[in-house]
Amino acid sequence: MKFKRKNILDMESLSVDEIFMILDTAKQMKDISARPVKKVPTLRGKTVVLFFYEPSTRTRTSFDIAAKRLSADSISLSAGSSSLIKGESLIDTAKNLESMNPDIIVIRHSSSGAPHMLAKFLKASVINAGDGMHAHPTQSLLDLMTVREHRGRIEGLRIAIIGDIAHSRVARSNITGFIKMGADVVLAGPPTMIPSGIETLGASVAASVDEAVEKSDVIMMLRIQKEREKNILFSTEREYSNVYGLTKKRLKHCMKDVLIMHPGPVNRGVEISPEVVDGPCSIILDQVTNGVAVRMALFYLVSGGVQNDDPD
Amino acid sequence: MKFKRKNILDMESLSVDEIFMILDTAKQMKDISARPVKKVPTLRGKTVVLFFYEPSTRTRTSFDIAAKRLSADSISLSAGSSSLIKGESLIDTAKNLESMNPDIIVIRHSSSGAPHMLAKFLKASVINAGDGMHAHPTQSLLDLMTVREHRGRIEGLRIAIIGDIAHSRVARSNITGFIKMGADVVLAGPPTMIPSGIETLGASVAASVDEAVEKSDVIMMLRIQKEREKNILFSTEREYSNVYGLTKKRLKHCMKDVLIMHPGPVNRGVEISPEVVDGPCSIILDQVTNGVAVRMALFYLVSGGVQNDDPD
Amino acid sequence: MKFKRKNILDMESLSVDEIFMILDTAKQMKDISARPVKKVPTLRGKTVVLFFYEPSTRTRTSFDIAAKRLSADSISLSAGSSSLIKGESLIDTAKNLESMNPDIIVIRHSSSGAPHMLAKFLKASVINAGDGMHAHPTQSLLDLMTVREHRGRIEGLRIAIIGDIAHSRVARSNITGFIKMGADVVLAGPPTMIPSGIETLGASVAASVDEAVEKSDVIMMLRIQKEREKNILFSTEREYSNVYGLTKKRLKHCMKDVLIMHPGPVNRGVEISPEVVDGPCSIILDQVTNGVAVRMALFYLVSGGVQNDDPD
Repeated sequence: MKFKRKNILDMESLSVDEIFMILDTAKQMKDISARPVKKVPTLRGKTVVLFFYEPSTRTRTSFDIAAKRLSADSISLSAGSSSLIKGESLIDTAKNLESMNPDIIVIRHSSSGAPHMLAKFLKASVINAGDGMHAHPTQSLLDLMTVREHRGRIEGLRIAIIGDIAHSRVARSNITGFIKMGADVVLAGPPTMIPSGIETLGASVAASVDEAVEKSDVIMMLRIQKEREKNILFSTEREYSNVYGLTKKRLKHCMKDVLIMHPGPVNRGVEISPEVVDGPCSIILDQVTNGVAVRMALFYLVSGGVQNDDPD
Repeated sequence: MKFKRKNILDMESLSVDEIFMILDTAKQMKDISARPVKKVPTLRGKTVVLFFYEPSTRTRTSFDIAAKRLSADSISLSAGSSSLIKGESLIDTAKNLESMNPDIIVIRHSSSGAPHMLAKFLKASVINAGDGMHAHPTQSLLDLMTVREHRGRIEGLRIAIIGDIAHSRVARSNITGFIKMGADVVLAGPPTMIPSGIETLGASVAASVDEAVEKSDVIMMLRIQKEREKNILFSTEREYSNVYGLTKKRLKHCMKDVLIMHPGPVNRGVEISPEVVDGPCSIILDQVTNGVAVRMALFYLVSGGVQNDDPD
Repeated sequence: MKFKRKNILDMESLSVDEIFMILDTAKQMKDISARPVKKVPTLRGKTVVLFFYEPSTRTRTSFDIAAKRLSADSISLSAGSSSLIKGESLIDTAKNLESMNPDIIVIRHSSSGAPHMLAKFLKASVINAGDGMHAHPTQSLLDLMTVREHRGRIEGLRIAIIGDIAHSRVARSNITGFIKMGADVVLAGPPTMIPSGIETLGASVAASVDEAVEKSDVIMMLRIQKEREKNILFSTEREYSNVYGLTKKRLKHCMKDVLIMHPGPVNRGVEISPEVVDGPCSIILDQVTNGVAVRMALFYLVSGGVQNDDPD
């Protein structure tokens, strides 16, 4: 089977077969990062542009490392750069970038749909690194990979996603991704943060966090945007932690081998307690490791999945 | 013939033969960027420093890609970095950089003459990526390359440059460059933006934009610095567009196969209409592609033009 | 002898033998930067993360060039990036970085002890690029290398360090480093800038700058932090220059072949006169060149000092 997709825009557009192919490829890629020499010549001579309108340490770094481990040339542009200041439109900037013959453009943008628009206009592959409150497919793929790695499968598992579902592109992509791969997804969080009609995506909404987490195989806590939400949606961090956070106490009622996930960065003591972050059920750092592997796999697959054997 | 120039500072200092050599080399370099494996080992083990005091997405990216496609190590410094904040002089910063044994220093600076000063003090090659309102030789070279590519020659052509001539280093370098290569250059724009005495460079000044563009083979529109000039030099963007902009209507009176150029980023609807930017006469994106090629050629030539055949 | 140290945190923890091994290795590394092809495959496939919480042009660039000349992949993170903004703790950020399998993390941080804390938690090597007012071991090592290069030895020399001793991590690391290697260190500066009890490190305090410098083999001037100290600790820059600065006049009373050093960036006319910076005794730019060599040596040694012979 050959991977024929040019762009990775959201989980909706990927087929089950494509997702399996990505996860299988990522597994091989992960081995490369565990070697003493963490580099293969696979994408030598390919140009990857990392185009981040929103700041991001970990996602940009993960893509950057992924590109370099495949020997691609990685070029970073950030929102502080000038053409953006100068008011040029996104499309004009992207067309200009494309004129420099990049092979892959990774974009993070605060506007939902920005990567889809670029993909329509560009010949280069476009990978969505997070657009507005819409989608974050590489996060969902790394989460799928991490669950599968620990459980051997995704099908039939029950995944609880807890927190600010309404504003989370991570939640949205994971609801779609896990359901597509045969899991059940149950949501919980402050009522104001559960969008009405979310059940149409196939997830169910629990009456409480306890109800959501108690019989779940995986608990995925979402990050609370402290800047935005404090004092508006709930009164104190301590109150949030008591009612909606994953505390040691709450974890006692969960399955003994439950997997605890978080997309990061973690607010210790708010949505998740420090002992839970660092505890034996946490696979948060595995998510980060798998992030590099999934991004290597995507770079490889959208490039045609062909090894570069050019001797020079 | 061997290229003997260490620095690329302005179009005045380059001979006609040198310009032809740069354009011929750039043509070969352009082929590299069109290959599946866009990388040659030519400058492996060379260090290129990109030293941008003024922000710039596209020019810095173009140089960065050019360096990487030649396998040079590319190091970016920007104005936000600390020594500049700490008040060290440009010369001290440059001498310090040079002590790290770079081969080429690319500099963009808001002060006219900064690259020339560096070139005097440094053993490394200096390439001017734009200094104040003085010069932008790599832009002029890529413009020459683009015109030559489309017309087969530069000599005998008539080039109209329209807009804020007074504050434009692009205009200044292109007036010199195109005249040196045998073209006629005619200028037009708001009277306050045409510097008195500009004819001494060999260009003529037209009475109106219409007069300038109607018999020209090439129309090069300059970017209006909206931040600076709005409300001062003309009253509204719409008014500017009507009187000085390149609109579809104005284009009807031009030669059928006229070439439309713009250094970017474009202000759609101000100095140039969207239909003209995207129309069949526009070669704006070719300019961007050729920018990478010209910068590869310059890196190659100032390095002595010798292929690195070191086996390791 | 094999270098067994995983981290480079401060001069206190390095043995005399280790320091000699670093300086000898740096000498070989320096040769690489003097070649036309300034690159060896030694650390190909290794990932170096440059993690700078404080801005720095020259130190970051020096590490970046060092990594690239050894063919390592170099990834830069800066304080402007987002997780830091988002309030994640240093440890969480570092653990996340580590999950991406870097081999070496270079950190500069405004908090004293930050690199030591990281080193405790991480499997990757940690190199301290300056922490608060505590330590700057790579600066001390490059200073040792530079003195040894010019004098053939460090033992028995007299080193004067002049300026704001109290707030200087450069001073602290050099007092420890030079004394450990058998030199005498004498300090001078404004009384408010000489910390009480500094003699316990083994240095002596001179009654005046003249007394300190007159019989010294090396004079190391420290940078005055103009932003912080002006108007507080002394009244004018000119007054500082007269009383504590290294002027041409003061230099006349020094040894004829005294070596003048400064960690940079230099405040010309404040702590050091322009003629002294540019004079025959100044080895300030040698320090910068040796900085790249020392950092290459450290990357090589903490990686196990083994050449990567993997053919691809």
